[in-house]
Amino acid sequence: MPTDRGQAGPTISEVAAEAGVGRATAARTLGGYGYVSPELRARVLAAAEKLGYRANALARSMSTGVSHTLGVIVADIGNPFFAGLLRGVSDTARARGFDVIVLSTYEKLEEEVAAVNVLIDKRVDGVIVASAALDREQSAHLMAAIDRGIPVVLVDRAVSALDLDAVVIDNRDAAREAVEVLIAAGHRRIGFVWGPPVAEAPATRREMVAAAARNLWTDGERLRGYLDALDDAHIPFDPRLVMVGPKTEERVVTEVGRMLALPDRVTAVFCTETDGMTGSLRALRQAGLSYPEDVALIGFDDSAWAAVMDPPLTMIAQPVHELGARAARVLLDVLGGAEPARERHTLRARLVQRSSVAPPRP
Amino acid sequence: MPTDRGQAGPTISEVAAEAGVGRATAARTLGGYGYVSPELRARVLAAAEKLGYRANALARSMSTGVSHTLGVIVADIGNPFFAGLLRGVSDTARARGFDVIVLSTYEKLEEEVAAVNVLIDKRVDGVIVASAALDREQSAHLMAAIDRGIPVVLVDRAVSALDLDAVVIDNRDAAREAVEVLIAAGHRRIGFVWGPPVAEAPATRREMVAAAARNLWTDGERLRGYLDALDDAHIPFDPRLVMVGPKTEERVVTEVGRMLALPDRVTAVFCTETDGMTGSLRALRQAGLSYPEDVALIGFDDSAWAAVMDPPLTMIAQPVHELGARAARVLLDVLGGAEPARERHTLRARLVQRSSVAPPRP
Repeated sequence: MPTDRGQAGPTISEVAAEAGVGRATAARTLGGYGYVSPELRARVLAAAEKLGYRANALARSMSTGVSHTLGVIVADIGNPFFAGLLRGVSDTARARGFDVIVLSTYEKLEEEVAAVNVLIDKRVDGVIVASAALDREQSAHLMAAIDRGIPVVLVDRAVSALDLDAVVIDNRDAAREAVEVLIAAGHRRIGFVWGPPVAEAPATRREMVAAAARNLWTDGERLRGYLDALDDAHIPFDPRLVMVGPKTEERVVTEVGRMLALPDRVTAVFCTETDGMTGSLRALRQAGLSYPEDVALIGFDDSAWAAVMDPPLTMIAQPVHELGARAARVLLDVLGGAEPARERHTLRARLVQRSSVAPPRP
Repeated sequence: MPTDRGQAGPTISEVAAEAGVGRATAARTLGGYGYVSPELRARVLAAAEKLGYRANALARSMSTGVSHTLGVIVADIGNPFFAGLLRGVSDTARARGFDVIVLSTYEKLEEEVAAVNVLIDKRVDGVIVASAALDREQSAHLMAAIDRGIPVVLVDRAVSALDLDAVVIDNRDAAREAVEVLIAAGHRRIGFVWGPPVAEAPATRREMVAAAARNLWTDGERLRGYLDALDDAHIPFDPRLVMVGPKTEERVVTEVGRMLALPDRVTAVFCTETDGMTGSLRALRQAGLSYPEDVALIGFDDSAWAAVMDPPLTMIAQPVHELGARAARVLLDVLGGAEPARERHTLRARLVQRSSVAPPRP
């Protein structure tokens, strides 16, 4: 929070006293960060106008930008996606003289809460987080950071209920485009290695969409993209073709194996993340099937390996470096004194067409 | 460093005065951390014995173990090897109530120096580092941390000149075993995608070994393993079969392509890291060659992708999780009051034999 000393006009403390609110509430209102109820906000703004208070952007930036360190909280440091994203954050932050420290939550919300506390304790200037929080209630730790004057930028995953800057990709469009490519090749039985940890497999489309709403934003968007493409082509939804549950390679092998053993089996599989693709490839081999002749394949998250497979794999490539770089730029701009825009910055993923899609066998 | 207050016996300052050395030197000697010359060490120990000084392990652990945070500095957070290692550190540290913050140096020594300063500033209790330092002179930042009472454990890379705990794998044995497997299959022209950033390609075996001594310990050990296997089989060393220079995928494609175009071309390639293998696979494809019939392949660093390649690849699997876990245990034990053993903890890598090695064509 800004220090009151050395300002020519009235201080935040004087505005707070005039408004009859706490100093923290006045600081949040006048600093443009954190939650303040509409009623208190109105009282603070009225008091500020009456006393002629002018925000001191320099004081604000100096009071926050003291450690020149950004904290980044990722869901899984072992996922190459996040590694690439971190490189983007790091390159941008280092170019502006900021260090970056990273914590990994391994997809556990309680670890994320602990990580935010560590970053507050370590006095970082701002936080970039790929949050596991699903709603406002689960985001109290993020709000707590903001209340302490530490701006927060979401990356990879938006949290629908939160009014924060978020840098994401167009997951829905990317998933729809991949499924459309499969449909255009003639496929109608298209498996989807989706994989949020849903306790019981949804039996209907309605239940599936409801399950998506209770899981990560990213997963929900990808399911919607899959459904969009089916709907546009008037292909009926079959819940047996969607894998839910923890997306370990072992489970993918079992689940894709199950889809390949159905009487009306899948002729194409769209899968997300590395485990989804390596598991699908194992399942094909176990079933004695080849791609692209027997089963067409598209994966989500390109890698050097996908390009050297024989045949090479058609993959969705996320702009991982730019995701991180953009999140860092948004955060650094706020630390530099800009007002948080609190908007969603959406980057486009790109479908890299290689040789894993062919028409289904007649 | 331990606080002197509240101790019944003589203080470190009194021992230092008796020995005629600075307090920091006495603290390093008695605390069992950091470098002290043999002569000064002997003087401090003699003074301590004369005055009846007894180390106060509790005071030492309390003075250091205050933030319950470990700092980990990795060379490249984008390398799956380090991601697995970090998971090992994190699992072990979290089980003992410690948080883990990570910084990536992208193989730049100046970034590593900055990272150590950040960790000191953030008051971590101890540091685990995969250091880019090659000698004592380049390790001043690590010594500075130790001088402030922050123990340092090296991981993945030993620094030969430093007397510190180091948790590493047996790189030399692992490399030798891989090359022995290729020799046993009948190969004598064995390429090695080695890759430390050497300005000019060494022209002789002597120059190659000298270059290794000026580069990362890991790289030096792997070269020695390659040479060991050749020597045992009386295969003459040919510098044209070793790739040096930055190990980007593009350069690997070029260099392996060059080895495949030699009149007496390579019939096998042993390559390190993901870029080494994916680059080698591209080079084979560009040359119209297949593995294992035309060229045998072994890689260093197993992955889920290597197992689903067709044919699946024979790879050296490093115990990445255990590397990190062991480094964390060594560090946490020191923070708990144990004397640093200052030893090298060597874990074994494992050769996973799959189907990328066949005899050379007759």
